[in-house]
Amino acid sequence: MSRVAELANAVVSNADQKDLLRMSWGVLSVDMEGTGLMLMANLFKTSPSAKGKFARLGDVSAGKDNSKLRGHSITLMYALQNFVDALDDVERLKCVVEKFAVNHINRQISADEFGEIVGPLRQTLKARMGNYFDEDTVAAWASLVAVVQAAL
Amino acid sequence: MSRVAELANAVVSNADQKDLLRMSWGVLSVDMEGTGLMLMANLFKTSPSAKGKFARLGDVSAGKDNSKLRGHSITLMYALQNFVDALDDVERLKCVVEKFAVNHINRQISADEFGEIVGPLRQTLKARMGNYFDEDTVAAWASLVAVVQAAL
Repeated sequence: MSRVAELANAVVSNADQKDLLRMSWGVLSVDMEGTGLMLMANLFKTSPSAKGKFARLGDVSAGKDNSKLRGHSITLMYALQNFVDALDDVERLKCVVEKFAVNHINRQISADEFGEIVGPLRQTLKARMGNYFDEDTVAAWASLVAVVQAAL
Repeated sequence: MSRVAELANAVVSNADQKDLLRMSWGVLSVDMEGTGLMLMANLFKTSPSAKGKFARLGDVSAGKDNSKLRGHSITLMYALQNFVDALDDVERLKCVVEKFAVNHINRQISADEFGEIVGPLRQTLKARMGNYFDEDTVAAWASLVAVVQAAL
């Protein structure tokens, strides 16, 4: 079994983690745009080197006023929606993750670099979930991120 | 005003067309995967030359069993969801369309080539909407496709 298949299978088989992903996604997705922008802002704060991989976006400090950053942030959220909707079907999860990976491979983003999203995701979950935030939810998202990393 | 802005503005300002887009999307999106696969199958049937632009996908006659085609088809539907969710905000619609255009520009898909999706979309709408299908709905989708074409 490929590493992507193995990790996708682990996600699809873990009912508790899927509940955490769906519950937290319910909160994150209330504001697709605001959450996407928050996640990207957290990424650039946590990993200044990430800016180099997003040179296309120009000045990311402008936030929502940067239309390229805005478009990227919103679109990223629909990719997450796509993943969350695929949690019950390992073949579906694999194929959408692999499609997502194509553009990141073209942009030469390594698995390690992609993994830098987990910290910013943790901060975003914390901001959005308030008292409901916990590390198990972060771990669930990290498992999903690991499927993407395996595809890079 | 740029051509993208002009056409995005026309879409956002047309309440009747937005109703048609949302109503038809309600039907198309019931089965994100099945509709995406149907749309791509219709594209390859109508425009055999399109296969050349999708060489990465391999043998597209395999349908859902082709995991690359499956991943592309599902992901395409989330792009449409992204557009439909942006219909009330011209800046949002513009920025997500322009983000969507980036990868198509990289793949050297021209505005004319992208426009070839309208026929297959018409067939897909007809299959999904049954008696509710009409040409006004096709025209509404063509207006949205035109915004993407302007960004290519």
